[in-house]
Amino acid sequence: MASLPGVGRRTALRLVLHLLRQPEAEVEAFSNAFTRLKKDVVYCRECHNISDTELCPICASTRRDHATICVVENVQDVMSIENTGQYNGVYHVLGGIISPMEGIGPKDIEIDSLIERVTKGNIDEIILALPTTMEGDTTNFYIYRRLQNAGIDIKISQIARGVAVGNQIEYTDEITLGRSIVNRTIFKA
Amino acid sequence: MASLPGVGRRTALRLVLHLLRQPEAEVEAFSNAFTRLKKDVVYCRECHNISDTELCPICASTRRDHATICVVENVQDVMSIENTGQYNGVYHVLGGIISPMEGIGPKDIEIDSLIERVTKGNIDEIILALPTTMEGDTTNFYIYRRLQNAGIDIKISQIARGVAVGNQIEYTDEITLGRSIVNRTIFKA
Repeated sequence: MASLPGVGRRTALRLVLHLLRQPEAEVEAFSNAFTRLKKDVVYCRECHNISDTELCPICASTRRDHATICVVENVQDVMSIENTGQYNGVYHVLGGIISPMEGIGPKDIEIDSLIERVTKGNIDEIILALPTTMEGDTTNFYIYRRLQNAGIDIKISQIARGVAVGNQIEYTDEITLGRSIVNRTIFKA
Repeated sequence: MASLPGVGRRTALRLVLHLLRQPEAEVEAFSNAFTRLKKDVVYCRECHNISDTELCPICASTRRDHATICVVENVQDVMSIENTGQYNGVYHVLGGIISPMEGIGPKDIEIDSLIERVTKGNIDEIILALPTTMEGDTTNFYIYRRLQNAGIDIKISQIARGVAVGNQIEYTDEITLGRSIVNRTIFKA
């Protein structure tokens, strides 16, 4: 238990003592859940999202727009974007972003498979929905270059950056505020 | 003291007792500062920013772009935007935003003076830098309509809205994330 992130020795002890107090069948079910976790959960062969089928429900859906791919860092991001209810395309989960500091290079994440997927055709747009950090920017640029080098001429967009919805100007950080003025958008009624 | 916002009775007592311990000259200087505050601080006749001259240093500056007006809610917002170092135009401080809930209408804030200022000409662009709240949106729209009705055809923009710089996707609130996908921008290298 203590090997889990954020669980210290004392918490681990508390959890184990709790399990000891439970009926044996329940503890066994708890234990089996982890075995099944590794065995049953697979990664979608198309978008690399977690799934219990070879092709995840999003990639398998005929009601989604398969010509638009939203590129995200990880599985949590897919869930976050799905929760907004504003996106109807498909995804591509990189499984990380390029980070020289942490020794993560382009070969360590699912970029080759993205380029391959786009090369197969029928893709209209790639939406880069990576973190608005330096690592995110680096990865955005790397993907852009790889697509250019592969001679693929499709629309590439990125999620809007600026002042979060519901925020006051005076409490917005300087960098975000500065960029939101430089990258201002045309106002429409 | 207790009449100040955020200062309770106990804090007020602590502050007053502190003042009682100070030399008389210092307390007098402290007292005079408030008299001068009301007497010396005036509002710029052009942009309604606080100033100690009839025309504030920003409006008086020949190094600023006087054809671009950034519309803000209050004086703190001017300071925030100045701190970004990314803006070289002038401002227009509304002194509030339209809020039916708080009984603030268009006549209660400096909108007439803004329209008048634009009508005089020589303005290329208005940047709406109001809060990304419903009140901010209402005020944006009202200003847009007033300019249309006055037959003024200039560029109107608004600050970019979206995911703040340095943020992870999974920790961004749903509404901001949803809008940042819908209002995605074209990616440039």
